[in-house]
Amino acid sequence: MRMYDIIAKKRDGGNLSKEEIEFFTKAYINEEIPDYQVAALLVAIYFNGMSVEETVNLTMCMAKSGDTVDLSSIDGIKVDKHSTGGVGDKTTLIISPIVAALGVKVAKMSGRGLGHTGGTIDKLESIPGFRTSIDRNEFFSIVKEAGLSIISQTGNLVPSDKKLYALRDVTATVASIPLIASSIMSKKIAAGSDCILLDVKVGSGAFMKNIDEGIKLASLMVDIGESVGKRTIALITDMDRPLGKAIGNSLEVIEACNTLKGEGPEDLTNMCIELAANMLYLAKFGNLEECRIAAHRVLNDGSAFEKFKQMVKLQGGDVTVIEDNKKFDVAKVSHEVLSKDDGIINSMNTEICGIASMILGAGRETKESSIDYSAGIVLNKNVGDKVKKGEKIATFYSSSIEKCLEAEKLLNMNIHIETEAPKPVPAILARVTRDGVEKF
Amino acid sequence: MRMYDIIAKKRDGGNLSKEEIEFFTKAYINEEIPDYQVAALLVAIYFNGMSVEETVNLTMCMAKSGDTVDLSSIDGIKVDKHSTGGVGDKTTLIISPIVAALGVKVAKMSGRGLGHTGGTIDKLESIPGFRTSIDRNEFFSIVKEAGLSIISQTGNLVPSDKKLYALRDVTATVASIPLIASSIMSKKIAAGSDCILLDVKVGSGAFMKNIDEGIKLASLMVDIGESVGKRTIALITDMDRPLGKAIGNSLEVIEACNTLKGEGPEDLTNMCIELAANMLYLAKFGNLEECRIAAHRVLNDGSAFEKFKQMVKLQGGDVTVIEDNKKFDVAKVSHEVLSKDDGIINSMNTEICGIASMILGAGRETKESSIDYSAGIVLNKNVGDKVKKGEKIATFYSSSIEKCLEAEKLLNMNIHIETEAPKPVPAILARVTRDGVEKF
Repeated sequence: MRMYDIIAKKRDGGNLSKEEIEFFTKAYINEEIPDYQVAALLVAIYFNGMSVEETVNLTMCMAKSGDTVDLSSIDGIKVDKHSTGGVGDKTTLIISPIVAALGVKVAKMSGRGLGHTGGTIDKLESIPGFRTSIDRNEFFSIVKEAGLSIISQTGNLVPSDKKLYALRDVTATVASIPLIASSIMSKKIAAGSDCILLDVKVGSGAFMKNIDEGIKLASLMVDIGESVGKRTIALITDMDRPLGKAIGNSLEVIEACNTLKGEGPEDLTNMCIELAANMLYLAKFGNLEECRIAAHRVLNDGSAFEKFKQMVKLQGGDVTVIEDNKKFDVAKVSHEVLSKDDGIINSMNTEICGIASMILGAGRETKESSIDYSAGIVLNKNVGDKVKKGEKIATFYSSSIEKCLEAEKLLNMNIHIETEAPKPVPAILARVTRDGVEKF
Repeated sequence: MRMYDIIAKKRDGGNLSKEEIEFFTKAYINEEIPDYQVAALLVAIYFNGMSVEETVNLTMCMAKSGDTVDLSSIDGIKVDKHSTGGVGDKTTLIISPIVAALGVKVAKMSGRGLGHTGGTIDKLESIPGFRTSIDRNEFFSIVKEAGLSIISQTGNLVPSDKKLYALRDVTATVASIPLIASSIMSKKIAAGSDCILLDVKVGSGAFMKNIDEGIKLASLMVDIGESVGKRTIALITDMDRPLGKAIGNSLEVIEACNTLKGEGPEDLTNMCIELAANMLYLAKFGNLEECRIAAHRVLNDGSAFEKFKQMVKLQGGDVTVIEDNKKFDVAKVSHEVLSKDDGIINSMNTEICGIASMILGAGRETKESSIDYSAGIVLNKNVGDKVKKGEKIATFYSSSIEKCLEAEKLLNMNIHIETEAPKPVPAILARVTRDGVEKF
């Protein structure tokens, strides 16, 4: 088998066989074929796409390229969740305890943030003492005891995706639906859960610019998951509006705690109920309405919050800080951003909110940057809200007033105050299961 | 400027600016951008093409990437000729003396053969003593004295094309019309002649499979040439039938000598008249009919043959061998291939004839292989000819009978003898000038 022939076949619109996909993924990991031939194949895939069968084969070759996690020693159904990247997306911190409180296991590996998107691991590490580097044995025993654990990735999971992603990143081939789908699903499959809930973001700041593209990616990922025996559902969610009010690590943990106590912002609470209900549904907890009711119940009776505290304690975190959020470190500087106009907030670019938060210190510009856990944004107003000139739109938290002023300039350019309200968009745009697509 | 953005622009169907094309060609030669990014761009060009303006800019950037030849010290109009690769194509050896005999200068650099295609330099080197490695000063003085010289490439001409071609070769991006056109034309422009005649082969063994593709490539090359001030004409010629009877180095020189003496095969003679007439026309010798008549005249009065002998003598070749072809080394073994059937030769794959000739020793399998100058094929029958079972179709010349038998097996599989004659195809299918396309 020659890499040249594989490139030529895909260039001419052919479907690669399982053997051909195995050949190039293995040869690339073993450095038996050069970057430039793989780059050529990636561009050919960008143009000619891949069939579902090809994408499944690529996904499985990548999933098996390194270590895989075998969760079978943990009783019960394990459900994983993946979001295609969000700003201020703290839902994992809320929905994992909800489903764990209802007996569904979450044994989750999460990532760190880079650029304008935050990472669940960074958020958890803002809790003093919280350990995210935990070995396999302790990870399993925490899941067995508490029903949930969220750790940073350990071991050599899916090295094939790391290598391919790095090459896609410099060859303008990131935005290919089969390549995105196989990248995400290979990691979820290697991570070993039985079911997978996908949160596919669409909007100006997301990879998928509109609902149709989102559905295309979601359907492919659901197909991949189901075809390898993992129950998989995807929700297509709107990224054109920040979810909740907090952006920034400890700020988001505080908001998550409030939500777990039933005192969170309405939009965030509703989203978490839907996400958690779908995870429960995947785990065959009941029908979707029964799952929603159960999720509400564990938020209101405090048992979801107790689950979160149990995980924090088992992973070495300071539970007193979770119980009394005033104990979190407070940023040196706070700064109020005031409205420049009367009107209604018509739009607010979510990606820009993320960049502003990064400027304040909450994110990493490069992999080497360090994070200021207390930095970030708390929004007082969101898209659709009425504002008066001089009214507070947001509070910024940072280590210096200069950073606040730089972030304010950016935010002001990207909040559009108009006389008319924007067209309301549902937070969840569609739900994709193996049975088809339901649009809302 | 970032290579990433250039890839993304072409990926999305945009037109690259002159500055962008300059940026990546220079950066690639200077090893400032990696192979994999250039590979990604080449595949994007393969899919989305290039405009004429982009192709002209790429051609000129490549042409200027190394040494260029300044022929201005040589009086008169210099005409170059390029063929897109043929089997048994000895036309350069015939048409160059024809036009030189009529006062049009030929200062030509040619290549060696690789694989199933022969190279003019190898053919010339089959003449004992003939030197093809000649420095610039001597090259110029031979052209000044004899009106023609054919040498192997000297200096660092178009290094950009060498590097890009090597990458195209391993990334399945050779067959892109703008990339083929810029590769050919950059070399012709760097070589410094005033006019360029292009022989674009079409047929099963050629890059261009049909006349429409051939016209597309030819038109683009004519556009490039004319837009940089070089008068350019392309003839689209049929490659589905070997031209003349000889394939192999000294065998082709002998056939060229016969043709220069007015005793060549009719198909080859006619083709050479047309090619030479177009070269003369480019040099403003007269109208096309006047050019044809003049070409005929110098073949018949012996002056074209004299020109050839003059070049051979000036480049150190043994003229007695040219005057008496029996003095050429003869192959150790000759072997007759006989017809297995009665009928008419319906088709004979030209590429396979080239490969058979390579097996006999006339060509190089790899760049390092050496050549047996006396090896090759002389065809007694060609496409359209009647044959009887047991009648001689060809004579093979080689150093061993084993090679002959291997080549015979291959040839037999690719000569198709039918009851009906094939549809006659003109040897020249179309002529492309800056004024448009004329089909025959």
